Amino acid sequence: MEVFEEISPADFFYRNRDIAGFTNPTRAIYSAIRELVENSLDACDLYRIKPEIYLRISQISSRGEGPEVYRIRIRDNGIGVPPEAIPSAFGQVLYGSKYKLRQTRGTFGLGGKMALLYGQITTHSEAVIISSTGAKKIYEYHLRIDIQNNRPIVLKRAEHENADRWRGTIIEFSMEGDYTRAMPKVLEYLKQTAIVTPYADITFVDPRGRLYRFSGIDSAMPKPPTETLYHPHGVDVETLNRLIKSTRARTLEEFLKRHFQRIGDRTARAFLEYAKFNPKRDPKGLSPEEVVALANAMKGFDFLPPDASCLSPLGEELLEAGIRKELNPEFVSALTRRPSTYSGYPFIVEVGIAYGGGVQASGGITLYRFANKIPLLFDEASDVSWKVVNNLIDWRRYKVSPDMPVAVFVHICSTKIPYKTVGKEFIADRPEVEREILNAVREVARRLSLYLSKKEYAERERRKLDVFQKYLPKIAEFSAKLAGKEVPDIRPLLRRASRIEAA
Amino acid sequence: MEVFEEISPADFFYRNRDIAGFTNPTRAIYSAIRELVENSLDACDLYRIKPEIYLRISQISSRGEGPEVYRIRIRDNGIGVPPEAIPSAFGQVLYGSKYKLRQTRGTFGLGGKMALLYGQITTHSEAVIISSTGAKKIYEYHLRIDIQNNRPIVLKRAEHENADRWRGTIIEFSMEGDYTRAMPKVLEYLKQTAIVTPYADITFVDPRGRLYRFSGIDSAMPKPPTETLYHPHGVDVETLNRLIKSTRARTLEEFLKRHFQRIGDRTARAFLEYAKFNPKRDPKGLSPEEVVALANAMKGFDFLPPDASCLSPLGEELLEAGIRKELNPEFVSALTRRPSTYSGYPFIVEVGIAYGGGVQASGGITLYRFANKIPLLFDEASDVSWKVVNNLIDWRRYKVSPDMPVAVFVHICSTKIPYKTVGKEFIADRPEVEREILNAVREVARRLSLYLSKKEYAERERRKLDVFQKYLPKIAEFSAKLAGKEVPDIRPLLRRASRIEAA
Repeated sequence: MEVFEEISPADFFYRNRDIAGFTNPTRAIYSAIRELVENSLDACDLYRIKPEIYLRISQISSRGEGPEVYRIRIRDNGIGVPPEAIPSAFGQVLYGSKYKLRQTRGTFGLGGKMALLYGQITTHSEAVIISSTGAKKIYEYHLRIDIQNNRPIVLKRAEHENADRWRGTIIEFSMEGDYTRAMPKVLEYLKQTAIVTPYADITFVDPRGRLYRFSGIDSAMPKPPTETLYHPHGVDVETLNRLIKSTRARTLEEFLKRHFQRIGDRTARAFLEYAKFNPKRDPKGLSPEEVVALANAMKGFDFLPPDASCLSPLGEELLEAGIRKELNPEFVSALTRRPSTYSGYPFIVEVGIAYGGGVQASGGITLYRFANKIPLLFDEASDVSWKVVNNLIDWRRYKVSPDMPVAVFVHICSTKIPYKTVGKEFIADRPEVEREILNAVREVARRLSLYLSKKEYAERERRKLDVFQKYLPKIAEFSAKLAGKEVPDIRPLLRRASRIEAA
Repeated sequence: MEVFEEISPADFFYRNRDIAGFTNPTRAIYSAIRELVENSLDACDLYRIKPEIYLRISQISSRGEGPEVYRIRIRDNGIGVPPEAIPSAFGQVLYGSKYKLRQTRGTFGLGGKMALLYGQITTHSEAVIISSTGAKKIYEYHLRIDIQNNRPIVLKRAEHENADRWRGTIIEFSMEGDYTRAMPKVLEYLKQTAIVTPYADITFVDPRGRLYRFSGIDSAMPKPPTETLYHPHGVDVETLNRLIKSTRARTLEEFLKRHFQRIGDRTARAFLEYAKFNPKRDPKGLSPEEVVALANAMKGFDFLPPDASCLSPLGEELLEAGIRKELNPEFVSALTRRPSTYSGYPFIVEVGIAYGGGVQASGGITLYRFANKIPLLFDEASDVSWKVVNNLIDWRRYKVSPDMPVAVFVHICSTKIPYKTVGKEFIADRPEVEREILNAVREVARRLSLYLSKKEYAERERRKLDVFQKYLPKIAEFSAKLAGKEVPDIRPLLRRASRIEAA
């Protein structure tokens, strides 16, 4: 007979840490760094604080037989965590502030805890969390996670005076890892983060004490993302039931206007007529079948597309600045598309293209992928952008050949990125998303093509002029001799030729 | 200020159903079918019951504006679910019988519930579960899932007499889906399932009433997988702590022998000496630091590799039979490698190769991937087998060119398949796994190469004989005439030539 048992979510993710990116010591240290950096950036960005992040990894003397153990410390100047929320926010899986409709880097509320959990199961060490929201006190917690029960265990708690009104969060813990092998990916990750967050100051001290500094450019930060209401196309029966359960609206009309975006007086009435519901009905009085009918009608009715003002794209200027800052290319161009929508979620695609300079030829297009301002470094070939860049675009049409140093940057921001894994590595090929990326890449490819044409033309003209400059004096001399005349001054002629070229 | 909240695991997977394969109506219906079929096969295989599975999908009249709704019914003759476990087993996420060290198709205890959950959020319909363990009663439950609290809601419960002592489980529920678009993948999935479970009878009735029947071959079933103890290389501090918490062993020596495989009297003593622990110590008296030291020592000590007798590979004969049954190739060969191990988990790689017949030329090697007897159909390019077959093997060395109809089959079985996603689509490239696959594919490729050589030789000889047959009579006649003699009987000569060829 089969024995049945229940496991906690912490236990689930502990058993299946592979799926959150904690596969082996190399990948684990990369994932831990990434998740912590992203949480820190979120804690700043969401409140338009210019991020200043300090990350230090030090090797704890290897204990003989075992694998290498590292101490990780990260400090940010973000909004801070309220003291009462600290234990659960860091010691309980599926507890957090990110379970809402808002564009954030983190979406699963899982990554940071997985890092601490991995540290605990490999070193049994406790995590130290120090945080302040900028009020009078700084709070310090020493935590461990009770994995079987998914609860934080507070081992020590202290309060410190906050004379300077410091605000931010410090996390420190130990974990097994293989930094040496993870290093290339970690550095690439930080570099790409600097591209897509060009306004952030990131300092990284590696286990050998080498300091990497990514300085933020002096620029206005993008408008932070805001929480938003559901779009009627983005709800299912479950969501609808939850809203009905919690609403204070007394009529269907009021219910729709209060809990959904893009529904005002007129739309509410038009929709309810279309769906054949009495606007005065109490939403709590709907039968299960009526809720299903309402949900289906919502999908069928032609509402205005989701409002994208809640999103926080980087903007063309910042994206170009980020690319310039880290790659210093010969040519760069960025494009922010107008908002679009899939399944009731708004999204914005931004792309950049860069040529030459620090961009290396790689036998093809080098693809940089970003989602909600985080770089995606693994499983490239499964990503929708890879499909667009490698299968759907004929680069010859844009005068781009595989031996050229060309990089394409794709950034998608949305209240819900259609990731295919908890590890946040690649994006599903929703048709709407694919189409937006395709159109955007085509446009910047056209711009690059124009630049390359101009460059080619200039090159051709330069070569022509070279020929002129080489032979014209000789021809002049020869014909002059032949005609028995004096050699003419050909400099005005050459000047004219180069002027034509420069025009 | 950030607002923090807790969500239930059901809520987590509801919000992130993409990661379990429920991305869109097409993918959802494919995933639902797949998860249900796999649960049914597990319910048979684990008890060496020859699986008889009946699956029916019927379209419920489309409700006007909304998408298509299907009714799914699956029936198996498996072990059945005890009545008291039915509500949670089908209505509570992270509750199940698969959270142990055993080779099963399901590993996350998630898929079947996700199918019901998806049905509920798209149609609000209840799920009907009918099951019996073959005792006097058949139990019928009508269920819904309370997603916010991750608890089953029993809407109806009934008991029926079980005069025939029927044993098995029936699941019936409705869900939105796009069967038309999912159809090719669904049929491919069932066909590949028939390859890797050649002893199973699977009947499928599609929404148009078309019946697909995959008949099981008459053969002994493979020995079922069994639950196993941890191998010392496969534990971390958390596992060790749990075992210490629950053990009744009074000494470390006893503790090791009781809870781990490959540790007998001698090994226990040798290891404890190596790890510098007194064998008589009470495991419950270890300090946290000592537990860490013990866990690390376990990783460093040279134990015998994990015992693979708990695994249930298909075997060369059955794999060949499965390939023959569904593809009827001209040549087929299968190989089951000896057990190997990664991170303390035993695994066995089996591969097959097939040529011609029903195998189609595809411009390369057609790759069939299986893990614990389930086919993997998506994200092929991210799988370790794809890497082996497409990047690591030089097929020209085996006389295989891209225009040939060649298929490679890779099956991995293990107590823990290193999946990279909850959707169970592709396997991480652990070096140990990669090496096993590479060696196995090389071996069967050699066999194919030998077959192709023989075939080529035979072909060459046949052509030679053709030439003989065509010209020899003429030469004989001509020379006879020339010599003024009678035309000799050349048939014995031709016979001899063809005999040489046949040898």
